[in-house]
Amino acid sequence: MSFHLKNYLEERRKAVDAALDRLLPSETVAPATIHKAMRYSLFAGGKRLRPILCLAAAEACSDSTDAAMPLACAVECIHTYSLIHDDLPCMDDDDLRRGRPTNHKVFGEGVAVLAGDALLTIAFELCAKTKPNASFTVGDYVAELAHVAGSRELIGGQVEDLEGEGKPVTPEHLRHIHEHKTAALLRGSIRLGALAAGASKGQLENLTTFGHDIGLAFQIIDDILDATSTKEAMGKSVRADEKNEKATYPKIWGLDKSRAEAKRLTDHALAALANLGEPAVALREIATYMLARTN
Amino acid sequence: MSFHLKNYLEERRKAVDAALDRLLPSETVAPATIHKAMRYSLFAGGKRLRPILCLAAAEACSDSTDAAMPLACAVECIHTYSLIHDDLPCMDDDDLRRGRPTNHKVFGEGVAVLAGDALLTIAFELCAKTKPNASFTVGDYVAELAHVAGSRELIGGQVEDLEGEGKPVTPEHLRHIHEHKTAALLRGSIRLGALAAGASKGQLENLTTFGHDIGLAFQIIDDILDATSTKEAMGKSVRADEKNEKATYPKIWGLDKSRAEAKRLTDHALAALANLGEPAVALREIATYMLARTN
Repeated sequence: MSFHLKNYLEERRKAVDAALDRLLPSETVAPATIHKAMRYSLFAGGKRLRPILCLAAAEACSDSTDAAMPLACAVECIHTYSLIHDDLPCMDDDDLRRGRPTNHKVFGEGVAVLAGDALLTIAFELCAKTKPNASFTVGDYVAELAHVAGSRELIGGQVEDLEGEGKPVTPEHLRHIHEHKTAALLRGSIRLGALAAGASKGQLENLTTFGHDIGLAFQIIDDILDATSTKEAMGKSVRADEKNEKATYPKIWGLDKSRAEAKRLTDHALAALANLGEPAVALREIATYMLARTN
Repeated sequence: MSFHLKNYLEERRKAVDAALDRLLPSETVAPATIHKAMRYSLFAGGKRLRPILCLAAAEACSDSTDAAMPLACAVECIHTYSLIHDDLPCMDDDDLRRGRPTNHKVFGEGVAVLAGDALLTIAFELCAKTKPNASFTVGDYVAELAHVAGSRELIGGQVEDLEGEGKPVTPEHLRHIHEHKTAALLRGSIRLGALAAGASKGQLENLTTFGHDIGLAFQIIDDILDATSTKEAMGKSVRADEKNEKATYPKIWGLDKSRAEAKRLTDHALAALANLGEPAVALREIATYMLARTN
């Protein structure tokens, strides 16, 4: 059976958008400002990579991805909240995101903080709406999401990233920052899909390795694109890392060695999928696509 | 059996502090900055009113409050996160909280935003650690907390509060803001204690009414104290409502009518406890104390 990645991504993106639209309060729900601000950033044309990986992981472990959809939406809410807060003047101070003015530029800083808070909060409401199965409970979903989004992973990585600005950072430390700031939520997205699908212990282990490795590769590519791409292609400010004096893979290792490391990680991730067979075809194709992406 | 409120509050406060200390990552967990910032605001000498109400509600419905303790800690994490974000320069811009410099004054705005985010996130991790019972699941705990902390309640109230600054507000609108901004989390704290204790439908209904009414009374008293008390007694800036041109009960109704409304609400709250009998003694005493508080 041939697999068309472009069609697959497009279909899944539409399904995720429809589910997000259904599961989030509409702009008419009071107070309208907060729901407009939440939706402004949530429906800003994101690629939905994390929710699609969540669904693809569920697909690799079971026949249906239905149970995973609220969790797919939850990880997108977490991702969007982290972008809104990350773009604030007191953090990375970015004016442009996904080709549009950032949330605080449109709604003001106060509402942007609250819109991020509200997206973070609703992510857990979506976990509570996800069906448990014979192996995993709502408590497992919530514990997984809270862990990868929390102070030891995503938020911890943001703090390390802020603290590393303008300072010399070793390759080991940089990898550590990337593991927390980026890889944790990608790995968590994949693990949540597996949990919702009632994955076996072995499947969950393989998908955890896969998620960790493509998560790191993703951030290396992101650093490379920030250093080499254009604002138009990326839909956000480029050379932001340089401006904020952030340590990056290209800065520490150069472009060629950075690209080689992203390739090595992707190969390792693909090897971890061997036991999952044909149902993991989408995950394989997405990993390869992520390595070659240009925005 | 006589009831000593002061001893009760002191014992419960210590138990909540000990549980928070046990359940939150220590300051030595990496990255240390975020855990220091979280603990700085969490252990700033709060009265622990919300967690104590949570435990007292559990006590009103069952013999043990053990199951409710992680939820009691969760509501305190939510309360503390909302204070950290509320104090930010882009929100109420406060320098003093619980008698100490606010989080962003000590750790900087970026870390303060992230410390709030991390406390919000860990609140749900604590829900996932709470034992389910024959009537309620972890999903019920998470759904309740996400609702009262979310865009339709707590966060919605903050937005309405920000939007109301400097504008004329009707008494109905003010009540609406207070219901969301303050009463929702107090009501939710009480309901969560009842859920963890496996409350009956009738008990939950009575406690919901109680929580709603003391929540509104609490905010009226807060407004009165902001207008009449001192910085030393309150441990935070006073006349902040005046400075931020916020609508308040005293401003709209005057002090006497505001005090009478707080009394009326407290009486109504107490009436709702009638069916709960002797085990609700702590809730009754706390409601009476809240009405008479001076800080």
